Amino acid sequence: MSQTVRSMTLASRPTGQPTAQNFALTETAMPEPAEGEVLVRVIWLSLDPYMRGRMDDAKSYAPPVEIGGIMEGGAVGEVIASRHAGFSEGDIALGAFGWTSHAALPGDALRKVDPAIAPIQTALGVLGMPGITAWVGVNRIIGIQQGETALISAATGAVGTLAGQLAQIKGARAIGVAGGEEKCAYATSELGYAACLDHKALDAAGLKEALAAAAPGGVDGYFENVGGKTLEAALSGMNDHGRIALCGMIAWYSGRGLDEAMSLPAAWRAILVKRLKVEGFIIFDHMHLYPEFLAEVAPMVKDGRIRYRESIAEGLEAAPDAFISMLEGGNFGKQLVRVGDDP
Amino acid sequence: MSQTVRSMTLASRPTGQPTAQNFALTETAMPEPAEGEVLVRVIWLSLDPYMRGRMDDAKSYAPPVEIGGIMEGGAVGEVIASRHAGFSEGDIALGAFGWTSHAALPGDALRKVDPAIAPIQTALGVLGMPGITAWVGVNRIIGIQQGETALISAATGAVGTLAGQLAQIKGARAIGVAGGEEKCAYATSELGYAACLDHKALDAAGLKEALAAAAPGGVDGYFENVGGKTLEAALSGMNDHGRIALCGMIAWYSGRGLDEAMSLPAAWRAILVKRLKVEGFIIFDHMHLYPEFLAEVAPMVKDGRIRYRESIAEGLEAAPDAFISMLEGGNFGKQLVRVGDDP
Repeated sequence: MSQTVRSMTLASRPTGQPTAQNFALTETAMPEPAEGEVLVRVIWLSLDPYMRGRMDDAKSYAPPVEIGGIMEGGAVGEVIASRHAGFSEGDIALGAFGWTSHAALPGDALRKVDPAIAPIQTALGVLGMPGITAWVGVNRIIGIQQGETALISAATGAVGTLAGQLAQIKGARAIGVAGGEEKCAYATSELGYAACLDHKALDAAGLKEALAAAAPGGVDGYFENVGGKTLEAALSGMNDHGRIALCGMIAWYSGRGLDEAMSLPAAWRAILVKRLKVEGFIIFDHMHLYPEFLAEVAPMVKDGRIRYRESIAEGLEAAPDAFISMLEGGNFGKQLVRVGDDP
Repeated sequence: MSQTVRSMTLASRPTGQPTAQNFALTETAMPEPAEGEVLVRVIWLSLDPYMRGRMDDAKSYAPPVEIGGIMEGGAVGEVIASRHAGFSEGDIALGAFGWTSHAALPGDALRKVDPAIAPIQTALGVLGMPGITAWVGVNRIIGIQQGETALISAATGAVGTLAGQLAQIKGARAIGVAGGEEKCAYATSELGYAACLDHKALDAAGLKEALAAAAPGGVDGYFENVGGKTLEAALSGMNDHGRIALCGMIAWYSGRGLDEAMSLPAAWRAILVKRLKVEGFIIFDHMHLYPEFLAEVAPMVKDGRIRYRESIAEGLEAAPDAFISMLEGGNFGKQLVRVGDDP
């Protein structure tokens, strides 16, 4: 194992939107796994909006990445050395390896991935954290019911793709919001959305009007991933006693759009007058539900009832640009980085 | 019945804080009760913050009062003529009589008040709509638990007074926010609050600091009646998985303070990162719980375990000023208007 490890580190903290200069590629010596650890060659790295928060030195639900530290991230890879009874060479493992080519982590912190269920990278997407996020949000936080209308922001993203399909499976009508004609066409033709509103083509007032036209009976559940004008339209279109699953607010993550945000008093008034329930959730609180989620959703992925799409960046060097682009909505489906070859 | 009816009407819609010019006293002929109706001589009129919303021509959970129409309001009075089998002359009845000396309403829309339980005006306060609002907010929306900390805004108001005491009865520590030294002294010495923060003496930063000192273990449930800087402090002090019962936002009712309001993205971020649950509620959705509420709370009011306080304005002419003052926090306890003599 004289090979080196290549990692993408946080070179500096961004102000606003990150740039390539905030990242730096480093090389270090290949680690030896300690007792209980597993050494993994990373194949697929997941890029997720929450990583933007880790780049700031601000209190959040997880501590920030330190300057010079390896960017955090979930990944799947092949076990190349194991000192943990649960893993053997050649196994596929999922873990928080980070933006790196190889990592040694305690086997107890990893999950084995069964390549027979679906392509291994789905453990980062439709059958991974984004998948269970969609499932918890739609079924536990919103609790969507037969005959209701669900509004899904970032409707073709990794979470939204599954959220919209799960709402339909529960008998609800799903309306999506996505950026651009291509994504909206995919949402309605492939993902079953009854309508998809293009937030790139509509201003705040236009989005409200389009939502009123698409959901004449109002919106019962809103899957909030974005904030911004989509939230404003959602609050305007919600029915009394509607539920909002607050999962993310990507439109505001890099400090953009804060001046145009609707006012808190206006939002508060909508929540009061319509008796809405708004619940923030973070998927790490719900991971005990993973087996139940997998048992329900994996068969539907395997037999094609649930569709998904991936955006793939090639090589660790491409990760920063792919990440920056994703924050602007440049991805189409789950954003992945191919870090190494398939086993 | 040649007597006339004196009523306070909405003369014009306010812009911002209402003034006396928005109201006009009118005299009309005494009505005869129709079949099924009851004619009531009003004794006590309730003044409540929600009435401010009815003065605007804006969509809310109830339609606005029309220009020239009698101001809406709950009241108790003595039945002076009845064409409804459920009411006899001399009975005390509670209903939406409005700001008026007499009104004829269908008996089915009224509730009989038992003067043996407590002074009849408590049917407008601690045993009436504010009381059940406090009870639903603390027990059903927040679901406060033994050992938790509850933060109660407008802590000495009609709702807050009971909310703080109910939280303590459930074994929680209650912290109040009120305007002025006198109210805060009353909150701690008479109502059992562990601490009371004076929002008139503290700016937003000071309120945050004072809350952190008063609740070193954080806040688990926030009873939101006010908005403004109190909400900002509450969001800053909430524990993970805290619950907010959004019942009102009096600080913003007349369009004041909107510029200084915390931003929606900042509030949204707190709700997300702390996984808060925010639920708007309107007491009219929960009135089926009134018997359960009364059975639980009336005995505690009767035996003095629950304390309450009233601000009394004398005569219908005094109602506008008392209402305007109440919106500024000028009341101390439940704001009532004595419209007629006790029976």
